[in-house]
Amino acid sequence: MNSKEVKMPAKAIVEFRCHGRAVGKMRNELAVTMVRPFEEHFDLASDEGAFHGGDATAPPPLALFISGLTGCIMTQIRAFAKRLDVPLDDLKVEARIEWLWVAKDKVYETAPQLFEIDIDIDSSAPHDRVVALIETAKKGCFIEQTLARKNTIRHRMKTPGGWVEV
Amino acid sequence: MNSKEVKMPAKAIVEFRCHGRAVGKMRNELAVTMVRPFEEHFDLASDEGAFHGGDATAPPPLALFISGLTGCIMTQIRAFAKRLDVPLDDLKVEARIEWLWVAKDKVYETAPQLFEIDIDIDSSAPHDRVVALIETAKKGCFIEQTLARKNTIRHRMKTPGGWVEV
Repeated sequence: MNSKEVKMPAKAIVEFRCHGRAVGKMRNELAVTMVRPFEEHFDLASDEGAFHGGDATAPPPLALFISGLTGCIMTQIRAFAKRLDVPLDDLKVEARIEWLWVAKDKVYETAPQLFEIDIDIDSSAPHDRVVALIETAKKGCFIEQTLARKNTIRHRMKTPGGWVEV
Repeated sequence: MNSKEVKMPAKAIVEFRCHGRAVGKMRNELAVTMVRPFEEHFDLASDEGAFHGGDATAPPPLALFISGLTGCIMTQIRAFAKRLDVPLDDLKVEARIEWLWVAKDKVYETAPQLFEIDIDIDSSAPHDRVVALIETAKKGCFIEQTLARKNTIRHRMKTPGGWVEV
């Protein structure tokens, strides 16, 4: 991070919201807002290919997801390299995710079964300082930290009588 | 899903890879490949705003991440509505994620603390069938199922002697 970085307090909440609207066959318009610590807006979309009944007008959700993971760990490595004085001449990362897909009655169920991240850092720093940079980046990576724990996702459904938990 | 859908076996592996390359100040070029069950390629990118030392040429990783989650649950709802014969006249979803951000020495650490998904389905089907559709979609949503469990992420680092675990 450089000198233009916003001064952050010792502790803060980072909040993102995404409003999705179904359009076309399988396309979703995704309006994303970072609400805190300051507001920013991003327009994205997902779609599916013809085999899933879509028109391939945007990447599928899993492409957005693995891009988020890969971009997040890379961003932390770059940001923390500056803070830890580890010179970074080049950085390439390859992430792999596998899910198991099982047909069940008319639908299917799914479960993740492999996460691998290969990190290729070109640096003049000694090996142990590059290892320390990676360790630090893992702890600062919002998405890695999210995947490494069991999260509870709360769902609500709109009804004529108001929002109800489902 | 429609009649053009590829016939899937009873069980399959879905594999995605993302090759990230650091360019510019904070931009990452993200080349995504679905490797299995069939191959497809998508080019994405992430960046950061000026306050994080970036040029804002692409959405930040967390915007890609929440878009993936929102798009995934929406896609499952639409795909499974057809399979379960639940008419879907309109679908809107709002997802909210909060992370706690804590400064630590020269860097910071982070942890997720809230996941909420509000689902607004316009359907002529009875309430309990719409609830059943949502329950089924949760189990079929690759990203929800990933977030709901503690995942192990394996890291390797490139060294002159080859790849080593870190």
